[in-house]
Amino acid sequence: MKIEVPGFVAGAIAAGLKKNKGKDLGVIYSEVPACAAAVFTTNQVQAAPVLLDKDRIKSGRAQAIVANSGNANACMGPRGLHDARAMARAAAKAFGIGEELVLVASTGVIGQPLDIAAIEAAVPRLSGKLHPSGLLEVAEAIMTTDTFPKAVSRQTLVGRRRFTVAAVAKGAGMIRPDMATMLCFVCTDVGATPEVLSEALRKAVAGSFNAITVDGDTSTNDTVVVLANGLSDLHLEEGPCAEAFQGVLNEVLSTLALQIVQDGEGATKLVSLEVKGAPSEGHARRVAYAVANSPLVKTALFGEDANWGRIMAAIGCAGVPIDPERVDIFFDTACLVKNGQGCGRKAEAAATRILKTDRFTITIDLKLGSQAATVHTCDLSTDYVKINADYRS
Amino acid sequence: MKIEVPGFVAGAIAAGLKKNKGKDLGVIYSEVPACAAAVFTTNQVQAAPVLLDKDRIKSGRAQAIVANSGNANACMGPRGLHDARAMARAAAKAFGIGEELVLVASTGVIGQPLDIAAIEAAVPRLSGKLHPSGLLEVAEAIMTTDTFPKAVSRQTLVGRRRFTVAAVAKGAGMIRPDMATMLCFVCTDVGATPEVLSEALRKAVAGSFNAITVDGDTSTNDTVVVLANGLSDLHLEEGPCAEAFQGVLNEVLSTLALQIVQDGEGATKLVSLEVKGAPSEGHARRVAYAVANSPLVKTALFGEDANWGRIMAAIGCAGVPIDPERVDIFFDTACLVKNGQGCGRKAEAAATRILKTDRFTITIDLKLGSQAATVHTCDLSTDYVKINADYRS
Repeated sequence: MKIEVPGFVAGAIAAGLKKNKGKDLGVIYSEVPACAAAVFTTNQVQAAPVLLDKDRIKSGRAQAIVANSGNANACMGPRGLHDARAMARAAAKAFGIGEELVLVASTGVIGQPLDIAAIEAAVPRLSGKLHPSGLLEVAEAIMTTDTFPKAVSRQTLVGRRRFTVAAVAKGAGMIRPDMATMLCFVCTDVGATPEVLSEALRKAVAGSFNAITVDGDTSTNDTVVVLANGLSDLHLEEGPCAEAFQGVLNEVLSTLALQIVQDGEGATKLVSLEVKGAPSEGHARRVAYAVANSPLVKTALFGEDANWGRIMAAIGCAGVPIDPERVDIFFDTACLVKNGQGCGRKAEAAATRILKTDRFTITIDLKLGSQAATVHTCDLSTDYVKINADYRS
Repeated sequence: MKIEVPGFVAGAIAAGLKKNKGKDLGVIYSEVPACAAAVFTTNQVQAAPVLLDKDRIKSGRAQAIVANSGNANACMGPRGLHDARAMARAAAKAFGIGEELVLVASTGVIGQPLDIAAIEAAVPRLSGKLHPSGLLEVAEAIMTTDTFPKAVSRQTLVGRRRFTVAAVAKGAGMIRPDMATMLCFVCTDVGATPEVLSEALRKAVAGSFNAITVDGDTSTNDTVVVLANGLSDLHLEEGPCAEAFQGVLNEVLSTLALQIVQDGEGATKLVSLEVKGAPSEGHARRVAYAVANSPLVKTALFGEDANWGRIMAAIGCAGVPIDPERVDIFFDTACLVKNGQGCGRKAEAAATRILKTDRFTITIDLKLGSQAATVHTCDLSTDYVKINADYRS
């Protein structure tokens, strides 16, 4: 699958920020100024690039994104903002555009000074080598503990006219609602106004990055940016295009969100938690997250142990009313718990067979209403601890 | 240290409930009916013994406690309650007392039927062998993944008169606020009314079991019971005795709470998180728990990595307002973060030396007010995952 969008070029380079000498600096450039929208971390501790982008995105326009891994440029005070601006300025200079049209993003260790000189030296070299299929390189350059680069592309017809949406992301640890801790850059050739683009992005994020969890932690650097350069002759103001675009954007972001969970630090399983029969969607989400973030549930998943008692215990302290004696629990289609009680050894054996696969759904029916919510998570393995105990060393 | 209280006898036996053939059934018996008070799990999924005790404790009187490990007797429906009652009845019969004077407690796997026949056979054998120093045996009998039995005893003089408080507990995993998932039985020879005893217990639990966390999970079986048999000539109605008793009870429960964290599943470190400079105590507690329960912080503690960025990130998503640019963080007395920014390599080196010890305090000063709260936690190790992945197998 080609990951490219008309009018966009991209690329990445090893600027010397990562200890492993891999690619750590990526640039995405639109040939023309694009309509831009973004969502950011809800953490109150926000990295300098987030603070800068939040200000710049107000204009609804951007033309380039510069992103680095190896350093989060967070908790650095005035110096952090200065470095984030300098990073953008280097790209603005290389492309001959206004620096207010450049967005920046960083990921990596918090609280250490960015090697801005290395970035300033690398950006001009990189800018001359961008190419249409360079988005995948950007996906590599923003990896931290990710084990594979995350990229996806979709083309769709509206009548006879075609548009493309391509996106790259990074995730791995610190993945949680509000939102998945990660970076994601979306490029499309539809035309848009900032208002409709922003609205479409918010909708797509709600059903994708805001419905996953790896460890319940939220980072300082979460950023999802979409650039719409309008080089197709389709515009989001047209009803059919808007509908098609929303569908494609939802699918692209959901695909990346699942890739992120699948690549959760140390994860061996991708598990969807579907809670239904709730009085409200919010109620269902609370229960789903309580189960998805329970270390005892997650370690049991890792151990392939159909220990449904831990699921019941997690449901019971989700902070919303439930009736334990109504709860049903299914592993895929196998009913493991009926009205709050186990269905016996045969049911557990069936559930254990399902647990030995790497992708399944746990359905929890509260039987208190008609609303539902789904959250995607992964197991908690010994490797998660090893990865995070050793991350900086 | 002798763990015994005038007028109480206790003991334990291997009834065959635990796979390892160890002691798994304990009994505590007061020679006279005692004043009784208790607090229980806030989990909405409550084990049968909890449901039974909640009803029986209303009378404010009890004379015996029967407790088992190896099976939680939770999520078993009517059968669970039937078994809990039968367990109490066996003890009532053996001692010739009313069954409403017997409390029960269970800990272990959820959702599997209790081997009540084994318990009914063991209780009479055990009841004939109780002795004054048998509380320590009870501490052993309620261990699950605990690596050591938890027991403590204190004697205090009020004027020339003496009273004793002794208690046993179990903890290990599933330890969290509201309250630590554990069992704790307190015996004392002071006299009391149920109201004042209950009030004293609640106060002591707030500052001990409700201020610790291992993994943020809350169990279905949490129970803290205190029996006050009045065999000393001191009574809680007397001002000096009430004050002395509260002090001793606080100390006894705090000691057990710290033992529980220290024995947190796979724990290698006992870390106190002190949050100060908060607008309210609740605010401080929220921040302390956000940090204490963050898997990324806990794995960094295990890795002995002074990765303060993760602490800042956890503070930032505690759900209460903070000002990142005011936050100071100390490891014991070493200042690691000042006004939201790192204090440099020398400070990190000092913090790293402290991290290599097994007991230290992380102080977070929000500089937003004058209130404070302390929470005790442990690190998240590869062994935590191993223990919990393998628990049932």
